[in-house]
Amino acid sequence: MEKQDQLLMKKQNKNLVLEIIKQQSPISRMEIAKVTGMSPTTITRIVNELHLQGFVRETELVTSGVGRKAVLLDVCGDVLYTIGVELDKSIIKIGIVNYIGEIVSCKSISRDPLEKYEETLGKVTNLMKELIGSHNVPNEKIIGVGVGLPGLIDYQRGIVTVSDQLKWKNVRLAADLQELTGFEVKIDNELKMKIVAENISGKARESKNAVLVGIGSGIGSAIILNGEIYRGESNNAGEIGHTVLDPTGNVCNCGKIGCLATYISEGAILSDSRKVKDITSIEEVFNAYRSGESWAINILERTSTYIALAISNILCLYNPEVIIISGSTIQNFPEIKEAIEKKCDLYIWEPIKEKVKIVYSDLRERGVVLGAALQAQNTLLELE
Amino acid sequence: MEKQDQLLMKKQNKNLVLEIIKQQSPISRMEIAKVTGMSPTTITRIVNELHLQGFVRETELVTSGVGRKAVLLDVCGDVLYTIGVELDKSIIKIGIVNYIGEIVSCKSISRDPLEKYEETLGKVTNLMKELIGSHNVPNEKIIGVGVGLPGLIDYQRGIVTVSDQLKWKNVRLAADLQELTGFEVKIDNELKMKIVAENISGKARESKNAVLVGIGSGIGSAIILNGEIYRGESNNAGEIGHTVLDPTGNVCNCGKIGCLATYISEGAILSDSRKVKDITSIEEVFNAYRSGESWAINILERTSTYIALAISNILCLYNPEVIIISGSTIQNFPEIKEAIEKKCDLYIWEPIKEKVKIVYSDLRERGVVLGAALQAQNTLLELE
Repeated sequence: MEKQDQLLMKKQNKNLVLEIIKQQSPISRMEIAKVTGMSPTTITRIVNELHLQGFVRETELVTSGVGRKAVLLDVCGDVLYTIGVELDKSIIKIGIVNYIGEIVSCKSISRDPLEKYEETLGKVTNLMKELIGSHNVPNEKIIGVGVGLPGLIDYQRGIVTVSDQLKWKNVRLAADLQELTGFEVKIDNELKMKIVAENISGKARESKNAVLVGIGSGIGSAIILNGEIYRGESNNAGEIGHTVLDPTGNVCNCGKIGCLATYISEGAILSDSRKVKDITSIEEVFNAYRSGESWAINILERTSTYIALAISNILCLYNPEVIIISGSTIQNFPEIKEAIEKKCDLYIWEPIKEKVKIVYSDLRERGVVLGAALQAQNTLLELE
Repeated sequence: MEKQDQLLMKKQNKNLVLEIIKQQSPISRMEIAKVTGMSPTTITRIVNELHLQGFVRETELVTSGVGRKAVLLDVCGDVLYTIGVELDKSIIKIGIVNYIGEIVSCKSISRDPLEKYEETLGKVTNLMKELIGSHNVPNEKIIGVGVGLPGLIDYQRGIVTVSDQLKWKNVRLAADLQELTGFEVKIDNELKMKIVAENISGKARESKNAVLVGIGSGIGSAIILNGEIYRGESNNAGEIGHTVLDPTGNVCNCGKIGCLATYISEGAILSDSRKVKDITSIEEVFNAYRSGESWAINILERTSTYIALAISNILCLYNPEVIIISGSTIQNFPEIKEAIEKKCDLYIWEPIKEKVKIVYSDLRERGVVLGAALQAQNTLLELE
């Protein structure tokens, strides 16, 4: 074998051992050798290296069957950290996440929807410093930052191509934030970040084929296929908001007619409600529904129909193992779940229905922050 | 390295060398060494083995720059064959395909839509024998059979779960055909077979992300993602025929309302036409359009609208590099292309439109036979 191949294999073995300890801890060296098929000597060498680098520690002794004491291994959550950032129209959220995926600290501040790009970046930088300081995380343990935001994101070049919600166009977000904070920065669409969290510790755990649908001020979806984010040719795969349901329907701000978003986004619900009543927020519509006002029932009834149709259509195209429904509409108006489920039952094609699990996200408002931090860890952590 | 790893690597190297000769022939041993980074000795050993096995032959001598003669290598198409079968409502097509993907012989016979399963199998077996006999292909050179057919196919167990067009349900097609013919048999949905042909020698050649849409008596799509067939959880990914466009629309035979198929399938066009005129075939509708009858223009105009919508929606979800439109409606009524293109221009979301190539299949009626044979080769060929 070439020397380079040997180095590569060494690295892969080390990654594998660490991954096994992370997944199955507490675990003994012996068991790792069994699972991997590597020799006890190799395992001992790798574990020693990982121990020196701070990734692994020894935990309690347990008595194995034959009376010998076995030392068990565990990973150290505090060996490194990444920071997750969620940017939205009117809120900025930042969380520090440790190596084993725990949010050790999280804070949010409001954002003015009309606020300038530089101003938002300043807020992010300050909040990040504050958070790091108050939690006493040493800067050298932070390997990078992940940012999730709505819009079309060129994740490879770190550029926000367009974000209607933030009113940004062609901004070099990753580079600018890197300059301000000193950390390496990875950016991506918020739902793509969120599904990473679902895939690692949420409802799509251990799922090879999963879809996450987001229903709120924007409408979109993200897809895990064969265990990886599926992006399509220009990172736009999953843009269900602009699938057309009715060629004679509502005009959409994208210039087409009958896009799904024009039936189920918060903006659509609000603007329809205003045809009836002088309403200022989506919560008022939900409250009107709760107090039995027929116009609100009509509008939200139609919303649930189109959400169920969207789910049905996604299932026909992707045939996933699990579909996770998330977003502020579902969070703030959980009553809609029952209507969605009833209609899903009617609208989903039988051969697909048999196989799929339809579930709701329970990562709630921390999903994007967690996913962004985990994705930063995935892409930035390089074992020496 | 373990002995098993060594054997595996030897096999991979051999496959790689053969693939390079197949792709880049005529090619010299020297060039193969350059491309692969393997030593000239290794290349010579592998080429000798491939030569003995009948895969590779030497072609003409060419004079290289410095006056030396170089021997070039080529693959032998006739080293092995697979057989591709297309089964449809009213036709059975069989083709013999050689190692380099050429159809060396192809024949079809009609099928009675009411014909029994056993009868169809008998016809397939006889036609296959006839074809093999008349082309003098030795049985031992045929490594297997691929069958493409409409419906939900359990390709792993070789079972047709349900095919509305053939009126089959839970038949063990692969095992039954294997028993009758003596060949190993692989089965799959016809569009999945067809996209294999597109990916190897058609409009999706060298494409990593491609979608094939089929518009005819059935409506469906097949997807290549990251260079492989994407199947979903139960091999049903791409079932666009049952995506719902209008929750107040036409009743579909699947029990839902407003499925895409109820607007654009041949059956839908026919049954709408019969509301106006006593029509017996889809060709009559096309001819009425050609002679300017307004009812036919109305119906086909609407068909083109919904086809464009379907294309737009597929693009939003998969964001592919290329979408290939195929099927009997497009083949027999090419006038519809112009209308589809005009509407695609209106209906496709800008950020997606920039990136995608919309093309028409030119494999025509041989696509399924070719793809089924190539897929049989892909899955059954094991280099010793």
